[in-house]
Amino acid sequence: MTRGNRIITLLTDFGTKDHYVGVMKGVIAGIAPKAQVIDISHEIEPFQVSEARFLLKQSWPYFPKGTVHVCVVDPGVGGARRALCVEAGGHLFVGPDNGLFTDLLQLKGARTREITSVKFMLKNVSQTFHGRDVFAPSAAHMSAGVPPARAGKLVHDATRLPGGEPLRTGRRFWQGEVAHIDRFGNAVTNLEAAEFLPLAVKGFKLNIGFKTVTKLVRSYEEASAGEPVAIVGSAGTLEVSIKEAAAAKKLGIGVGAPVELEVW
Amino acid sequence: MTRGNRIITLLTDFGTKDHYVGVMKGVIAGIAPKAQVIDISHEIEPFQVSEARFLLKQSWPYFPKGTVHVCVVDPGVGGARRALCVEAGGHLFVGPDNGLFTDLLQLKGARTREITSVKFMLKNVSQTFHGRDVFAPSAAHMSAGVPPARAGKLVHDATRLPGGEPLRTGRRFWQGEVAHIDRFGNAVTNLEAAEFLPLAVKGFKLNIGFKTVTKLVRSYEEASAGEPVAIVGSAGTLEVSIKEAAAAKKLGIGVGAPVELEVW
Amino acid sequence: MTRGNRIITLLTDFGTKDHYVGVMKGVIAGIAPKAQVIDISHEIEPFQVSEARFLLKQSWPYFPKGTVHVCVVDPGVGGARRALCVEAGGHLFVGPDNGLFTDLLQLKGARTREITSVKFMLKNVSQTFHGRDVFAPSAAHMSAGVPPARAGKLVHDATRLPGGEPLRTGRRFWQGEVAHIDRFGNAVTNLEAAEFLPLAVKGFKLNIGFKTVTKLVRSYEEASAGEPVAIVGSAGTLEVSIKEAAAAKKLGIGVGAPVELEVW
Repeated sequence: MTRGNRIITLLTDFGTKDHYVGVMKGVIAGIAPKAQVIDISHEIEPFQVSEARFLLKQSWPYFPKGTVHVCVVDPGVGGARRALCVEAGGHLFVGPDNGLFTDLLQLKGARTREITSVKFMLKNVSQTFHGRDVFAPSAAHMSAGVPPARAGKLVHDATRLPGGEPLRTGRRFWQGEVAHIDRFGNAVTNLEAAEFLPLAVKGFKLNIGFKTVTKLVRSYEEASAGEPVAIVGSAGTLEVSIKEAAAAKKLGIGVGAPVELEVW
Repeated sequence: MTRGNRIITLLTDFGTKDHYVGVMKGVIAGIAPKAQVIDISHEIEPFQVSEARFLLKQSWPYFPKGTVHVCVVDPGVGGARRALCVEAGGHLFVGPDNGLFTDLLQLKGARTREITSVKFMLKNVSQTFHGRDVFAPSAAHMSAGVPPARAGKLVHDATRLPGGEPLRTGRRFWQGEVAHIDRFGNAVTNLEAAEFLPLAVKGFKLNIGFKTVTKLVRSYEEASAGEPVAIVGSAGTLEVSIKEAAAAKKLGIGVGAPVELEVW
Repeated sequence: MTRGNRIITLLTDFGTKDHYVGVMKGVIAGIAPKAQVIDISHEIEPFQVSEARFLLKQSWPYFPKGTVHVCVVDPGVGGARRALCVEAGGHLFVGPDNGLFTDLLQLKGARTREITSVKFMLKNVSQTFHGRDVFAPSAAHMSAGVPPARAGKLVHDATRLPGGEPLRTGRRFWQGEVAHIDRFGNAVTNLEAAEFLPLAVKGFKLNIGFKTVTKLVRSYEEASAGEPVAIVGSAGTLEVSIKEAAAAKKLGIGVGAPVELEVW
C-alpha cells in the first residue's frame, strides 16, 4: 500500500436528513485535515446490504488507486459483527463484516483485517454509531498514512454473500436478477452485455416481470414512448428502460426480481 | 481563458440515490486531483432542461471567474446530440447541446466548441452515461489547465430554446411565467423587479393560477398567514409566496404556468 | 480566536433541490478559496428552529477547534431580526438571532456580536436570501482570518429558547421530550443516559405516545421485531427504536412529543 491519495469515499444508508454524515466528515477532518471526502450515496435503503454491495462494485474502479472507501450499511451495529478493513485492487475498504465486501474478497491478493486497535477509534465508542466512532476515524488514519497492518490481525473468514452473478443455465440461456433500480426507474440487471451479446446473432428475449423485451436500443431516444426496451447501461450490463417513464414501476418489479434471457 | 481556479460545479438530474454523481467526482479526482467540486443541484426533474437552465442562470454568476460548470440534463444521451463546451462571461460550461446554455450563448464574446477529442473522454464511452465518460473528464482536463481549444472545433449553431424572458405586451403589461418552484413552494417568476417596480407607482396586479396578488411585502414575516403575496426574490424577480405554506400547491400551479402583470 | 482551520459547516432548511446551497458555496469559494465546506444537513423541516438547534448541538463538538458553523433556519429573514456571530467553545457560529444558538450562549466565555459591517456582506443584500448575502460571506471572511470583532458590536440579549433540557420532577422521575426523529424513524429523546441509568438499579419505565417501554438493549439486534425498546443513542440520550421499523410512525409521535421516565 502506497501513501494514498487522500480521497475517502462514503457509502451509507444514513440519509442526508440527519447530521450523521456531516459528523463523520467532522471526525475525518480532525484526524486527516487534507483528506478529500466524496459521497457515493447515503440513500441506500436502510439495511439493504446487497444494494450497497452493487453500488460499491460499480463505483470504486472509477476512483484513483489508494482511495479509502468507507461503507456503512450496518444492521448489526453494536452486536458481535466485526469491523473490517480490506485491501484489494490497490484500494482500501472499511466497514462492517456483513457481506458488503464479498466482490472484493475475490480479487487477487485481497487482504482482510479486523479493526481492533483503539488507536483507530474515537475514545468513546457508542453502541449505535460506529460510522462516527470506528469507521470514519479508521479511514482517516489510514488516509493520513498509518499502515492498515496497525488496525488489527488478518482474518480469512470474512462474510461472503451469495448472488451477484447470473447463472448460465444453457448454451443460450441465462438467469439473472435486477441488481438496482436507479433514480429514473431503470431496472439495472446483472447480465453482462459482453458475455451474451456476441451470441445474440439473430435476436434475444428478456423476461422481466410479466413482460418480454426483444428490442435493444443504442440510446434512450431510439425507443418509442411506453415501450420497454433493453439498453447496455453504464455498468456494462443490460438495463430495462421505458422512454421518459419509470420502467420498474410500470413493470411492477424491484431489486432482486428475477430475469431470464434467451439468445439465438 | 486564464488558468482557472480549479472549481468545478455540477448540475444534473441524476439524484443522489444512485452512485452516478459520486462516480463523476471519482473521475474528476483522478484527472484533476486539486479540483474542488461543488454541487449546485442533482434534483432537477428528470429531463427538464428548462428548469436546469433557470438554476444555472441563477447560480453561475456567484462563482469566481474561471469556474467550470458541468450541466448534465440529457434526454438525448447516446443519440446524435453534440457535447459542447461554452466559454462565456469568464466561465466555462460543459454539457449536452440541448438548450441548457441558451442564456450564455447570448453573452458578448461567447465561444462554443463541440467536444470531439478523445483525450477529453474516458477510454470506453458508454451509451447512457456521458456525465461520467465525456463531461466529467472534459471539465477535469480544462480545470487542470488544458485549453478548451483542444476539445474540438468552434460551432455556431448551438441549440437555443425560446422563452426564459417575459414579454412586455403594453406600456403597463407583462406576460411571464413561473420559472421555478423552490423547496418552500415559492413560485419564482421570470418578471424582473427592477424593470417594472419603478412603474408601479400606485399599485399592481399579478394574475397567477386563479388568484390575483396585489400586495408586495419586503419580508415573508410581513405577510398574513394564508394570504398570497409577492416579494422580490433572491433572483431579483417576483416570487409569489404564502406565509409558512407551499404557495405553488395552494395556487395549483407548476413550472411554466403563465403569469400576467399590470402596473399603474 | 486563532487563525482557524478553514472548515466551514452548513446547516440549513434549504433542501438540496434548489441551487441555494450551491450558491452559498460559490460565494464562500470566491472569498475564501482554501475553505473546506462540510454539509451537516439541509433537510431541517422548513422554519423548525428547535430541530436545527438539536442537530447543531449534536454536531459541532465533533469538528476541530476553529471551525465556523453557518446555521440558516430563518423564518424572519428580511425582517428586524439580527444577524449574529457567536464565539463559543473554540468554535464560531454564524446565523440569525432566533434561538438557534441558545445552547452555545450558555457556554463559559461565549461572546456574541451583531454582524453589521457591510464588509462581511455581499454588495447587494436581498430581502429573502441572507444565507447567500450575509451569512456565507461573513463565515468566509472569518474563516480566511478576519477577526470576528470586525463584524460588529457585542450584544448581550441574543434570543434564548426554552426547553432542550429535561425536567427532573422527583427523585425517580424525569419529564423530557422527543428532540429529533432520525431517518430510520428512531425517536431520539433529550434524556441523558448518564444521569439516570446509574439510578435504574432494578428497572425503568419510559412512557412515549400510548406505549410504555421497559426494555433497554445494547444493540438494535437484541430487540425482537415489532417491540419498542430503548437504547443509548449516539447523542448519549435515550432513543426509542423498533427493530427494522420506523418507531416514530408506529408510536404516532413527532418532534416535541413528551416522554416520562421513572426508575427504581
